[in-house]
Amino acid sequence: MAVETERKFLVNGERWRCDATAAALKQGYISDDSKVAVRVRIAGERAFLTVKGAKSGISRLEYEYAIPLADAEELLAQLCQRPIIEKTRYTLDYRGLEWVVDEFAGDNAGLVVAEVELDREDQVFERPDWAGEEVTDDPRYLNTNLAKHPYRTWASR
Amino acid sequence: MAVETERKFLVNGERWRCDATAAALKQGYISDDSKVAVRVRIAGERAFLTVKGAKSGISRLEYEYAIPLADAEELLAQLCQRPIIEKTRYTLDYRGLEWVVDEFAGDNAGLVVAEVELDREDQVFERPDWAGEEVTDDPRYLNTNLAKHPYRTWASR
Repeated sequence: MAVETERKFLVNGERWRCDATAAALKQGYISDDSKVAVRVRIAGERAFLTVKGAKSGISRLEYEYAIPLADAEELLAQLCQRPIIEKTRYTLDYRGLEWVVDEFAGDNAGLVVAEVELDREDQVFERPDWAGEEVTDDPRYLNTNLAKHPYRTWASR
Repeated sequence: MAVETERKFLVNGERWRCDATAAALKQGYISDDSKVAVRVRIAGERAFLTVKGAKSGISRLEYEYAIPLADAEELLAQLCQRPIIEKTRYTLDYRGLEWVVDEFAGDNAGLVVAEVELDREDQVFERPDWAGEEVTDDPRYLNTNLAKHPYRTWASR
């Protein structure tokens, strides 16, 4: 079993950029209901099919499998819901933990979100000063919801 | 791209059994809407995650990936819709083509269906005499529908 435990924050400023490694991500959802989401993701030349269970607290079941890039391109083009999410994922180390910062493009341009994956829900960690408001429990920031209700369409942001 | 082209028949009698190889299958659906189904299948000690597009004629897109058996057992137990389909799959050669005969158990006990996979929709093939009524276009026999409306619940059968 793989359990994913993440906390998510809006990002302030640009100071996180200097130490980060960037990768272009493109992803879409084959399905996403209240119980489970099935995601196709292309990260550079690699591709993945991921099954994610519903959140329980800040954790959720996650199963990820590498698949051929050509399959992922067909799945995104033919079987995934629209729009496809495009973002640049920056990865950086902060005080011993790996953070990812997602800078969205397309219909979600303007949105920059930071995530840190934890070993357990009550884990104590140092929060960088560029990590602003916590949005772990705000469903609008789920990628499944950003596909259906992109950031650019939000009335107040 | 993988395109699956199948024709499906109800099975008469028992003559097909003598030449067949049997394997126990257990499968469930993570999602199945009108456009796409995501299936988890355990076949003996092997397990697969499969994405199937909607049918177009008698063909459909299909992408299948081997996954760890332990993952498949968790996915069936935790993230698949109920009931799980259980069946014995018999594989046999008939005049140069591979046929599979699925004998269902559990809520679909009593149902025996034969399928042959073709290279193209108009392919000519020899039909064994134990292959009865063709049900290729009858949606009740889709495994996704047999999960929701099992054979035992059908009013007229």
